[in-house]
Amino acid sequence: MEPADAPRFRGLASRGPKRGAGLDVAFAVLNRIAMPTRRTFLHRTAAAAGGLALAAPLAAAPRFPRIFHASGSEKVRMGFIGVGMRGRSHVELAARRTDVEIVAINDIEPRALADTQKALRDAGRPEAEVYDRSPFDYQRMLERRDLDAVIVSTPWEWHVPQAVAAMRAGKAVGLEVSGAADVSECWQLVDAQEETGAPLMFLENVCYRRDVIAVLNMVRQGLFGETVHFECGYQHDLRGVKFNDGVGPYARGAEFGPKGYSEARWRTLHSQFRNGDLYPTHGVGPVMTMIDANRGNRLTRITSMATKSRGLHNYVVDVGGAAHPNASVRFALGDIVTSMIQTSGGETIVMTHDTNLPRPYSLGFRVQGTKGLWMDLNKSLHLEGTSPAHRWEEAQPYLDRYDHPLWRRYGADASGAGHGGMDFFVLHAFVEALKRKEPMPLDVYDAAVMMALTPLSEASVARGGEPMDIPDFTRGRWISRPPIFALTDEY
Amino acid sequence: MEPADAPRFRGLASRGPKRGAGLDVAFAVLNRIAMPTRRTFLHRTAAAAGGLALAAPLAAAPRFPRIFHASGSEKVRMGFIGVGMRGRSHVELAARRTDVEIVAINDIEPRALADTQKALRDAGRPEAEVYDRSPFDYQRMLERRDLDAVIVSTPWEWHVPQAVAAMRAGKAVGLEVSGAADVSECWQLVDAQEETGAPLMFLENVCYRRDVIAVLNMVRQGLFGETVHFECGYQHDLRGVKFNDGVGPYARGAEFGPKGYSEARWRTLHSQFRNGDLYPTHGVGPVMTMIDANRGNRLTRITSMATKSRGLHNYVVDVGGAAHPNASVRFALGDIVTSMIQTSGGETIVMTHDTNLPRPYSLGFRVQGTKGLWMDLNKSLHLEGTSPAHRWEEAQPYLDRYDHPLWRRYGADASGAGHGGMDFFVLHAFVEALKRKEPMPLDVYDAAVMMALTPLSEASVARGGEPMDIPDFTRGRWISRPPIFALTDEY
Repeated sequence: MEPADAPRFRGLASRGPKRGAGLDVAFAVLNRIAMPTRRTFLHRTAAAAGGLALAAPLAAAPRFPRIFHASGSEKVRMGFIGVGMRGRSHVELAARRTDVEIVAINDIEPRALADTQKALRDAGRPEAEVYDRSPFDYQRMLERRDLDAVIVSTPWEWHVPQAVAAMRAGKAVGLEVSGAADVSECWQLVDAQEETGAPLMFLENVCYRRDVIAVLNMVRQGLFGETVHFECGYQHDLRGVKFNDGVGPYARGAEFGPKGYSEARWRTLHSQFRNGDLYPTHGVGPVMTMIDANRGNRLTRITSMATKSRGLHNYVVDVGGAAHPNASVRFALGDIVTSMIQTSGGETIVMTHDTNLPRPYSLGFRVQGTKGLWMDLNKSLHLEGTSPAHRWEEAQPYLDRYDHPLWRRYGADASGAGHGGMDFFVLHAFVEALKRKEPMPLDVYDAAVMMALTPLSEASVARGGEPMDIPDFTRGRWISRPPIFALTDEY
Repeated sequence: MEPADAPRFRGLASRGPKRGAGLDVAFAVLNRIAMPTRRTFLHRTAAAAGGLALAAPLAAAPRFPRIFHASGSEKVRMGFIGVGMRGRSHVELAARRTDVEIVAINDIEPRALADTQKALRDAGRPEAEVYDRSPFDYQRMLERRDLDAVIVSTPWEWHVPQAVAAMRAGKAVGLEVSGAADVSECWQLVDAQEETGAPLMFLENVCYRRDVIAVLNMVRQGLFGETVHFECGYQHDLRGVKFNDGVGPYARGAEFGPKGYSEARWRTLHSQFRNGDLYPTHGVGPVMTMIDANRGNRLTRITSMATKSRGLHNYVVDVGGAAHPNASVRFALGDIVTSMIQTSGGETIVMTHDTNLPRPYSLGFRVQGTKGLWMDLNKSLHLEGTSPAHRWEEAQPYLDRYDHPLWRRYGADASGAGHGGMDFFVLHAFVEALKRKEPMPLDVYDAAVMMALTPLSEASVARGGEPMDIPDFTRGRWISRPPIFALTDEY
């Protein structure tokens, strides 16, 4: 199925970064994916099935047209595309669940595969079958009939082709977060989902962060009044992630691309060649749950501006010296990229991308309505009629009182899971919705909107801040789709 | 000099606000100002003097072309155009200075004039001569030969015509802050200053706020590295200012326009008819000092988005009931207006206008460079190599250590002055620069840029977030003008 001469994935950035080849190689590899037979077959099948999603009337399609759950068993048989640091964390969480079987893993890094098998053994699980023959071996894995679902945790540029391939193979997809390379990728996801009916869950874990989902609870109970304005972002000093010594993931060094390790090998290339909000989902995802985006509301417009780019170059010089080859690399990514987003509901969202400079981690949330606001930076809120006039109040007592039912029920299970427990909930939701044949709480339309913000912000930055329209990926169905995210304590 | 039939200023909003007449009346009044003789004379004088400012070569005009200080005495003889609550506060501060004589006051409100005379008597000062015959009586006051300078503290729409008239009458001008109605007003200010040489100081007091100017000190000493990104704004729940009972300035009520008192009488009309950042200066002014705006750097572009408008209507209903006549007023101003500004130096500035909703006061400063950042919301900073990695530090020890020399020297004098002492410094700078015949530290170009942000943000909002070019009011001289703001402990 895959071209015999396909370069191995680790060769992604095998040419010098200065020559701009890294992503080109990656995309060239992707463009050579050859699966016309399967794609044609499934297209035909979908057409024969009546194209349910496409033909559904505007007001009558609040749920997925059909739920794709091949096995029918109580257990979800799961495969993992990508078992690097992020994918392995999902494997470990899945291994804690009695309702999941870990059938297959796919990667091309022997170290990643070995570490994952060890993690399975440590969890008392059988080793999974390995698919490691090439960067395209996930396609062979997807041919397995005993596989219900896959989790995609690969470098960003692989997310869409792998998710699309999985849906077309009839698998449910848990898709790790990223920004798209191009808006057309988002449409590919939407089209594949609508044509196949395969569930897709976007694994935006911050939507389940304990304070964030408590604030969602407060929003829904009307404490902030009508929603008006939001701030959010991804403000995380990633210099130690974008560069390392090529051996350890967080070891100090000035290497990236072919000489880097883990994310430094591929993620940094996006900073070298792209200027926009490269990582919008952790900020905007939670906001979307609070304004019922794609469910009575939608994001309509974005405009972005970027600062000059200094941080990554300075870091290379600081760590590697002025004579280090990477000191002559020009990084396209502005150190701070700010975006403003409008919604059809009249809200605005200000989103900040800040990953190249020294700073404490902060997603910078602000949730503001007609009756008050919450901000996470000062861990405070103000609610009219409750808080002292013109004064902040400590947020924690409110966060405790409005602790989301999910955390009340599953807080103990989440304990020890990655990222303060929220990783538990995002996998939990995927598995539970799948078992119940219910729609995914963060679905393909949410994924498409969030992922589209990256190329749209790039376009806006390149045009000096011109606003860009955000496509309506629901094709009008946002008007009547009801909110479903985290309505109960189930998932 | 003034038309005999000019309506009195208090009639500004004499028609119902729903008919949109308030500002129209004000502007119609302004358009009928008749002072052709003086204007023509001064134009001719300026031309005869060689048009120094206009003819000066690009690199040789860092200072005002000539300093206009008629009296030559040690004391500055000062008049006040507008002695409402803001103007009276300046009078009281001026009365504490031994180098200022308070010669004349102009207003049309008997209560304001009486309160001001009482304040002068209480300060052991002689009463000032009163100019109160009409909204244009400031013109008669400006004819006095014994007047060196005026402070303009009137409703926003009067700022530019009064400042221009004062400059053309050969007076130095201390101009209170506001946004312009139109960019052409900013050019009027610049043209008048360049043609007359009369000094103009923009009284942006937050530039002297103790923490803000300490941070400026830190910026200049390189603690934050190269400047990259800023946040600022005017976030102040003004509902109790925009509405009152028509008797007291902060008394609870749902009245504004002709039935309102003090700022509710005129300021609220801007919220009724305009949608943009109505009050940019307190936020952007300090940022401009930190990036040397108009002095080696400049603001080049702005884009703005506004939320829906809910807060003012809700407030009227809450306070006055749903049957109150003002409950049917439609307010144009979005509750939150966010702007992004680009600079020629590659920085971005995010500016928030938030005056219609319940919230604690905050100008929301963030000052970020390649080596760290300060934020005032959490009173914290992070400096690479000094702060613990990825952690905030309390800002106060740094603010103390880098306390600006001006505060070290004059902190005791500033004690008791308005707005935490910063009002002392802005008047002090105006008077001291005038006495020394030195350029104003916040000059007409700074005023023009800040004031222009309001109509430019309105235009951007109206165009769905399209970026608007910010004029170069220095006509190229920003390239070579050196920074002068608060370089020493003098002013």
